[in-house]
Amino acid sequence: MSTAPVDCLFCAIVAGTVPAWQVMDTPEVVGFLDRRPVFKGHTLLVPRPHVETIHDLPHALMQPLLAGAERVATAMKAALGAQGSFVAMNNVVSQSVPHLHLHVVPRTKSDGLRGFFWPRTTYHDDADAAWHAGALRDALGAGG
Amino acid sequence: MSTAPVDCLFCAIVAGTVPAWQVMDTPEVVGFLDRRPVFKGHTLLVPRPHVETIHDLPHALMQPLLAGAERVATAMKAALGAQGSFVAMNNVVSQSVPHLHLHVVPRTKSDGLRGFFWPRTTYHDDADAAWHAGALRDALGAGG
Repeated sequence: MSTAPVDCLFCAIVAGTVPAWQVMDTPEVVGFLDRRPVFKGHTLLVPRPHVETIHDLPHALMQPLLAGAERVATAMKAALGAQGSFVAMNNVVSQSVPHLHLHVVPRTKSDGLRGFFWPRTTYHDDADAAWHAGALRDALGAGG
Repeated sequence: MSTAPVDCLFCAIVAGTVPAWQVMDTPEVVGFLDRRPVFKGHTLLVPRPHVETIHDLPHALMQPLLAGAERVATAMKAALGAQGSFVAMNNVVSQSVPHLHLHVVPRTKSDGLRGFFWPRTTYHDDADAAWHAGALRDALGAGG
């Protein structure tokens, strides 16, 4: 968390100096429509303080952020007939605005979108999978 | 949150009765490799109790879940050279296993994947956007 850079679009939306179609406004998070929605109603939830990525997000804001996403996803059922939701964030890579934003996208079974349709790969063998799991466990340290 | 159904694959992984390439094990969450990773190291983080979707997730587990994702994303930098991460969950639609799981996928700028490359739509006009934002605000209620 740092002071808001003067050129941060999402800080400007939070401050109200740039207009947005606001959906939610709480002491911790602000939600507004993505201007280029995957499906209409697609909402971006941002923490009020300028936080760039998940690595900068104070632990005290994690519950408000996810609880906000849950409330928006519930509202999508009531307001838009959504059957489910996709909740996602990009950190650094593919992150269009460097102010953490959680996408909440309404989903229906007939929406023609596979939720996670990126090409999948496989591990060469058990040793390959074991190496990757072990490397992550090692990096996580004893507290893993 | 409910009692674990006998046929829940992720409950079985949490219980240790089905093997998995475990990455993280805390009092609140368990992380293990997705067997069909988007990129190697792709980890699924699940709450220990059987929780189906974000709507069933106790608020007390939200911070541990996101904090766990942050730690795994940090480990991906150290262990796998990741530059960023994609953190996502599907609720109901496109949710392959009905036990909440948060995908944590390592990303690099050269990975050839656009983070959010689904076809986007647009609102017909301002009234269309205003209607969607208003419908969500109304569903969220006065506490919005």
